[in-house]
Amino acid sequence: MLAETKSLNEECGVFGIWGDDNASQLTYFGLHSLQHRGQEGAGIVSCDEGKLLVHRNLGLISEVFKDGNDLQRLTGNRAIGHVRYSTSGQNSIENVQPFLYHFYDMDIAICHNGNLVNAKTLRRNLEENGAIFHSTSDTEVLMHLIRRSQKDSLIEKIKESLNQVKGGFTYILLTEEKMFGAVDPNSFRPLVIGQLPNGAYVMASETCAIDTIGADFVRNVNAGELAIIDDNGLTIEKYTDDTTISIAAMEYIYFARPDSNIAGVNVHTARKRMGTRLAIEAPAVTADIVIGVPNSSLSAASGFAEESGTPYEMGLIKNQYVGRTFIQPTQELRELGVKMKLSAVKGVVQGKSVVMVDDSIVRGTTSKRIVTLLKEAGAKEVHVRISSPPLIYPSFYGIDISKSAELIAAKMTVDEICEYIGADSLAFLSQEGLIDSIGLKFDMPYSGLCMDSFNGDYPTGLYDYEADYVNNMTAIQKENLKGGQV
Amino acid sequence: MLAETKSLNEECGVFGIWGDDNASQLTYFGLHSLQHRGQEGAGIVSCDEGKLLVHRNLGLISEVFKDGNDLQRLTGNRAIGHVRYSTSGQNSIENVQPFLYHFYDMDIAICHNGNLVNAKTLRRNLEENGAIFHSTSDTEVLMHLIRRSQKDSLIEKIKESLNQVKGGFTYILLTEEKMFGAVDPNSFRPLVIGQLPNGAYVMASETCAIDTIGADFVRNVNAGELAIIDDNGLTIEKYTDDTTISIAAMEYIYFARPDSNIAGVNVHTARKRMGTRLAIEAPAVTADIVIGVPNSSLSAASGFAEESGTPYEMGLIKNQYVGRTFIQPTQELRELGVKMKLSAVKGVVQGKSVVMVDDSIVRGTTSKRIVTLLKEAGAKEVHVRISSPPLIYPSFYGIDISKSAELIAAKMTVDEICEYIGADSLAFLSQEGLIDSIGLKFDMPYSGLCMDSFNGDYPTGLYDYEADYVNNMTAIQKENLKGGQV
Amino acid sequence: MLAETKSLNEECGVFGIWGDDNASQLTYFGLHSLQHRGQEGAGIVSCDEGKLLVHRNLGLISEVFKDGNDLQRLTGNRAIGHVRYSTSGQNSIENVQPFLYHFYDMDIAICHNGNLVNAKTLRRNLEENGAIFHSTSDTEVLMHLIRRSQKDSLIEKIKESLNQVKGGFTYILLTEEKMFGAVDPNSFRPLVIGQLPNGAYVMASETCAIDTIGADFVRNVNAGELAIIDDNGLTIEKYTDDTTISIAAMEYIYFARPDSNIAGVNVHTARKRMGTRLAIEAPAVTADIVIGVPNSSLSAASGFAEESGTPYEMGLIKNQYVGRTFIQPTQELRELGVKMKLSAVKGVVQGKSVVMVDDSIVRGTTSKRIVTLLKEAGAKEVHVRISSPPLIYPSFYGIDISKSAELIAAKMTVDEICEYIGADSLAFLSQEGLIDSIGLKFDMPYSGLCMDSFNGDYPTGLYDYEADYVNNMTAIQKENLKGGQV
Amino acid sequence: MLAETKSLNEECGVFGIWGDDNASQLTYFGLHSLQHRGQEGAGIVSCDEGKLLVHRNLGLISEVFKDGNDLQRLTGNRAIGHVRYSTSGQNSIENVQPFLYHFYDMDIAICHNGNLVNAKTLRRNLEENGAIFHSTSDTEVLMHLIRRSQKDSLIEKIKESLNQVKGGFTYILLTEEKMFGAVDPNSFRPLVIGQLPNGAYVMASETCAIDTIGADFVRNVNAGELAIIDDNGLTIEKYTDDTTISIAAMEYIYFARPDSNIAGVNVHTARKRMGTRLAIEAPAVTADIVIGVPNSSLSAASGFAEESGTPYEMGLIKNQYVGRTFIQPTQELRELGVKMKLSAVKGVVQGKSVVMVDDSIVRGTTSKRIVTLLKEAGAKEVHVRISSPPLIYPSFYGIDISKSAELIAAKMTVDEICEYIGADSLAFLSQEGLIDSIGLKFDMPYSGLCMDSFNGDYPTGLYDYEADYVNNMTAIQKENLKGGQV
Repeated sequence: MLAETKSLNEECGVFGIWGDDNASQLTYFGLHSLQHRGQEGAGIVSCDEGKLLVHRNLGLISEVFKDGNDLQRLTGNRAIGHVRYSTSGQNSIENVQPFLYHFYDMDIAICHNGNLVNAKTLRRNLEENGAIFHSTSDTEVLMHLIRRSQKDSLIEKIKESLNQVKGGFTYILLTEEKMFGAVDPNSFRPLVIGQLPNGAYVMASETCAIDTIGADFVRNVNAGELAIIDDNGLTIEKYTDDTTISIAAMEYIYFARPDSNIAGVNVHTARKRMGTRLAIEAPAVTADIVIGVPNSSLSAASGFAEESGTPYEMGLIKNQYVGRTFIQPTQELRELGVKMKLSAVKGVVQGKSVVMVDDSIVRGTTSKRIVTLLKEAGAKEVHVRISSPPLIYPSFYGIDISKSAELIAAKMTVDEICEYIGADSLAFLSQEGLIDSIGLKFDMPYSGLCMDSFNGDYPTGLYDYEADYVNNMTAIQKENLKGGQV
Repeated sequence: MLAETKSLNEECGVFGIWGDDNASQLTYFGLHSLQHRGQEGAGIVSCDEGKLLVHRNLGLISEVFKDGNDLQRLTGNRAIGHVRYSTSGQNSIENVQPFLYHFYDMDIAICHNGNLVNAKTLRRNLEENGAIFHSTSDTEVLMHLIRRSQKDSLIEKIKESLNQVKGGFTYILLTEEKMFGAVDPNSFRPLVIGQLPNGAYVMASETCAIDTIGADFVRNVNAGELAIIDDNGLTIEKYTDDTTISIAAMEYIYFARPDSNIAGVNVHTARKRMGTRLAIEAPAVTADIVIGVPNSSLSAASGFAEESGTPYEMGLIKNQYVGRTFIQPTQELRELGVKMKLSAVKGVVQGKSVVMVDDSIVRGTTSKRIVTLLKEAGAKEVHVRISSPPLIYPSFYGIDISKSAELIAAKMTVDEICEYIGADSLAFLSQEGLIDSIGLKFDMPYSGLCMDSFNGDYPTGLYDYEADYVNNMTAIQKENLKGGQV
Repeated sequence: MLAETKSLNEECGVFGIWGDDNASQLTYFGLHSLQHRGQEGAGIVSCDEGKLLVHRNLGLISEVFKDGNDLQRLTGNRAIGHVRYSTSGQNSIENVQPFLYHFYDMDIAICHNGNLVNAKTLRRNLEENGAIFHSTSDTEVLMHLIRRSQKDSLIEKIKESLNQVKGGFTYILLTEEKMFGAVDPNSFRPLVIGQLPNGAYVMASETCAIDTIGADFVRNVNAGELAIIDDNGLTIEKYTDDTTISIAAMEYIYFARPDSNIAGVNVHTARKRMGTRLAIEAPAVTADIVIGVPNSSLSAASGFAEESGTPYEMGLIKNQYVGRTFIQPTQELRELGVKMKLSAVKGVVQGKSVVMVDDSIVRGTTSKRIVTLLKEAGAKEVHVRISSPPLIYPSFYGIDISKSAELIAAKMTVDEICEYIGADSLAFLSQEGLIDSIGLKFDMPYSGLCMDSFNGDYPTGLYDYEADYVNNMTAIQKENLKGGQV
Repeated sequence: MLAETKSLNEECGVFGIWGDDNASQLTYFGLHSLQHRGQEGAGIVSCDEGKLLVHRNLGLISEVFKDGNDLQRLTGNRAIGHVRYSTSGQNSIENVQPFLYHFYDMDIAICHNGNLVNAKTLRRNLEENGAIFHSTSDTEVLMHLIRRSQKDSLIEKIKESLNQVKGGFTYILLTEEKMFGAVDPNSFRPLVIGQLPNGAYVMASETCAIDTIGADFVRNVNAGELAIIDDNGLTIEKYTDDTTISIAAMEYIYFARPDSNIAGVNVHTARKRMGTRLAIEAPAVTADIVIGVPNSSLSAASGFAEESGTPYEMGLIKNQYVGRTFIQPTQELRELGVKMKLSAVKGVVQGKSVVMVDDSIVRGTTSKRIVTLLKEAGAKEVHVRISSPPLIYPSFYGIDISKSAELIAAKMTVDEICEYIGADSLAFLSQEGLIDSIGLKFDMPYSGLCMDSFNGDYPTGLYDYEADYVNNMTAIQKENLKGGQV
């Protein structure tokens, strides 16, 4: 699956640091290592002597801070930052985070990863009571709830508000006095804490950001927890006891960086095990070589190759330079635009029977193009092996697949998909295979994974989205349903 | 070896097309696939009804043409283009190619890949005779020679001029009436010809550009040849018979894209064979896993892993997003800047004895940093295996290593380098191993390879560079010398 | 007085149009003619089929819309726009207007010219009740009041809210259904209505904008009025009957464009009369020539010249090109920076006794520099004549002079100022002279002018500013006080 | 006449300084005061310890140096600079001056104001002998001549080359050792020398630049002179004795800044005298008011008003903000685009009989629009008075009117023009009136003025332009011809 298609994307990465004089620079490095979680906007808020300072804009973190002065202006020994993925239009600078609020009694900055399922209802209620929103982001909802809370302390206001929002989220908040990190009651979205040798605390969406800046891993922020960091150190509180662990399986399959650990499991290793298991579940006995779709499927492909004893080759090359698409007047040119991003290696695949390992199929159009590429380059046979189960159900907790109509596996059988993409054979990893390969050990449904996209089991219910979703279910979706929420 | 260090870099990629109505768009695609050969400037000249139109600027091809209109203005069914690598300063826009000249009798555009060894002398002679240069580029020298030639036809003027320049080069020239492609008498630098289904001819530095736009391979432009394309088709002439094939070995080792074929040999396959041979020549028997330095060493690493039976793992992650380096006030931050580009995967290397395969060592500083990264991530042992021989001699034919003082292997023995980079063992591929792995079959020295960086054998002599080079030779350089030019 | 000094500046211009298919283009033209009222930010909101579209940014209107596409995207036959003056910092894009709000029940855009004196109190009250502000602009206050109003209709909500804000203001609001224009109960700030031949209605801060787009003047929006425009035409309602006409005298003296009419009086003509009156009140009998400080004092200077019979000459040249000030390492260079903007014409002033007419003196530093310029260019004598009374009191209703400490006339007598600026004589127009020259005929204090800056008579009281102002009054301010508010 | 129409424009301003540590900053100030001579490109070359440094780009000087660092990098105590007017396209950055050449034996920078009439022939000859040009600028021609000169010293090479170029020019050249300033044998184009109190020498196109940086006027560089400045001071040599003084009358009429002196005559004063003389030659007895077209005609208008005893009023306002023209879909909008730049003051002209003074009429379209503006604003009568004679002949010495077809006075009688522009009467200043008003006292034809545009008397002949010009002469041109060159 190609990142460029933007059909499957995590909605953001967050980072925070407390207690290092290079706070904004370290946040820059941290966000750079989380860049794969969002490329459309980035920002940093630092705090210096009680003043919160912000710089944010559309673009990659390196583009947003291409003028080094912008980073140097963000002085102080504490900072939070955000990289953002969004599908909204070009004028969405209002949605770029962290959001920074100046109140008569305090300043607060906030950033957010995830998606709420009851945001629409909350927003409507707030507006009916005179609230004015300035973005279309869910993040703003929490801030209105906090400011309207009648609780005495900021901590209690935050806890009360976290109990009102439903869905997948991690929030980081920064005030002059404290930094907060919160994770939803299902820990759909990850948040980890690290510590630098100088004692400074760090929070981030993935461990790779902790590693990049040279910090040691301290602990995960778990479901329903609120981490509070100030000059006295780290405190963990629970804002709710009504928790169930259901970590998004898609983090392991596609989103996270291979060098990150989620809930103690290394992502590359989990992916390699998926490939190994896939080779056992769905071998391709006639194949000459195994190739992976770069970059996210290379781990699984090497696992498949080792298990099957088939040589692992570099049969597809991803162009490492981003090629913006100018306006392409003809269909022919548009198709070349695809080749610009991914090339088949003729010298490798010509005359071969190829196993092509990919991590997922969303719409099917990308798989179809890659199979075509390989065949045009001379591949005799192309056996597609997907290192995860079919994506049958939309996601609502922070992944950008919210329409059933876009999911080919919601509308076609495996055989039909195989024919559609032009492969000689097609197989997916089983749900059990996926759960085993990741290898979580929680005494929870699916060992602690959220399998919603594969089995329609939505741990929190769907709130604002429910009616529309239920009314538009496909026959395949109804048939494969597991769990009782819907 | 990391591309970011910019210590080893090919000096440019060239592209040309004749006979397709989307000439400039196809040139954009072609240059995009050659972007790895130069990232500092790019440009395209098209020809429409006798008028040559140009757009060029500093930056990646996608940055230079980020405004789609710039490409649309380049109308016509023929075009040439260039991507440029350079070490000169920020004001070097004068050096961005193609160069376009408007004369009273014709317009000519020219672009160039390579380095001349007698440019300084030629330039001085020309200036003494009133010539005015507007760039510091060698490319301009050829144009002055052509314009001052007393021959009758443009073809004869070009041929005469090509016999005056010495070194490594490919040139593409475009006039209203013809497109020319020339390769130096040693074919140090590659140039290939392809053809689109509609009959349009294409020239490019690598076959990957031919493939990207959907053209079929026709032939290489060989040593001493001048390819001429016009509405009557393709003609090949020789401008000299004094030729010796000596294709730059570095194209196979590092520069070219894995999906390209050079002189009929696929680059990925050659690299994998280097890794295989290296595993035979210098096994690392105690190793648990094999890892490659991304991206150029992954092919060799997988060959090493297969041959040695040691599992191939993803132990290093290259951040796919370019992180510009803002001004970093402290040494600590500067070191983090390195981690930003490359991360070790703790979950993979911790507690393991690791074979780290890289394609080359230039200054040694990068290797030292990567070994440190791996050890900090918990690797028990790091055995460095280099899939090419030691780089002892500078290059003068179009590769940016022209100072002996920068080459660690010109100053230290293998054991000393091993200690310097902190590895537990270090081995290089032998020169024979390299020649065998690439597998050219020419009845020429080194089977048709240029091995100058490894053995000091400079096929054309060094001209302007000779005195300075000879005076500064190190003891190791003198000792390892092969061939008689110096 | 020089515009570049930014010590005296109107805070914005507003424009609106309803019923022309080129609404956004006409708004661009209208704002361009109001550019003198604010150069730091600009924006337009149009309405097309119920959708409100916005484009705004820092810079001149021509810079904000330098990409023509941005204007073309603002489709629809109704639009409002704003040009902004501000003293806040570079990150003030949040403050650029019009503001656009998307609510569940409607969209509203709003823009504002003026300054509220009770905004701080209102804002604090609103925040204590959970309101979240996103800018530091007073404009946002009105929107919160409207959204929290319990009245039934939007018109009634607006009227109620207008009665809560105190100070000088004109607002233009746009919804899908209506365009509103409101003027404060003192009509400190002007707003006029015009009509195009095709029936479209136009609102603008000055008549010059009406003229520029070829519309006819219909009427002024008067103190306490709310103009409502929709597809049924124009309706005028009063939101309060507690009104007193006190039009800012500074509009006539300095701010407005000479071709505008305010309350029926042409600005150029009023200025020329001020010069005429000044020549009677304070003749300079020995003078050879009269010169004006470009551009705002040229009308007064020509009046002075005609009345006194002294030739009017171009003795000072304003450079029409804006010269950004790079960092100037030395005091000498900084002084040249001033010359860059204004030059004395040696050939005109050399050996002459000069009357230099200017419209006002704020800090005195600019006057001092101009006198020096003239003397360095050879002027024998420089007699400074100011076509308005001394600026003794700060302004709070929308003019950026809010600190007494900056006003030289609050701290020095006329003789002391004369010595400070190095003039041979100095005289100001009398308050009666100013009132007579402008020639309003309202049966109100000062014939309907606001003279606050000259006599400390603040028609609405000072609310949030009062305590600080009263505590810091100078002896001269206390002495010259007229009226009883303070 | 409006500058925006770009139909009459001086081709550049030059500046040079030798001996001040703030050389590049002073050059910036100097060029800023010459900005009216060219707005399309600007650049500065400084010299520091033998190294010539350059920064140049398209745009105003303030835009080119908007990043202050660009100016700070131009260190050294000597510098030259240029502002450029051109009609060529957007890619003309190659033509932005100063040009900087790095030769094996020296570095030279050069900049140029004016137009050569034999450049085409010289260029062709040079190209036939192998010269390669990199711009379309005449300036480059001189550099080729210098580099090919067989003379011994640089000074002699320059002198020889200056004798080969024909037309109007001022050149400034800078090398490590000397700064040179040259003026054509007719002194069509002005060049003046000044000196700072610290002894540094300055050269500039106009005295206003000398004044701006606080230097004293030393002398003009006269026809056929080469000024040489180095650490020994100033030397004046003659490169030819075949000189005739014919200073471009258009400098006085339109181009130069009013505060400049040319050949000792102040420009504002000369213009005022033109207005005075015009009032005598062509009075408008019924007129109520006199107005000038801003900015260049204000001096003449005030002269007309004083002489005629008719009040001088501000009847036209020029918008001081530049309004870029976005794409205007309709004719109506395009016409509003004109109003955006210039507005009639209704309150002044309504019901009045107006004398409108302008400096010249080129195509007539602008005059027509202004007359229409005034009538639409209610003017009862509009009597147009032009403070120069009819422009019947194209200019070839550095003014951008090179096509007879564009000159309305080459095709129509005064009565026809009057009707075309819709005026109630029209009169031009006589040629004698112009010569008298300027008041030069040289014992040369036309007292030392170049009157070519009015009488077709081209002092140097037309060389490359002659054939085409003669073949396309209009009947009116043939009839009014004076002098014998053509």
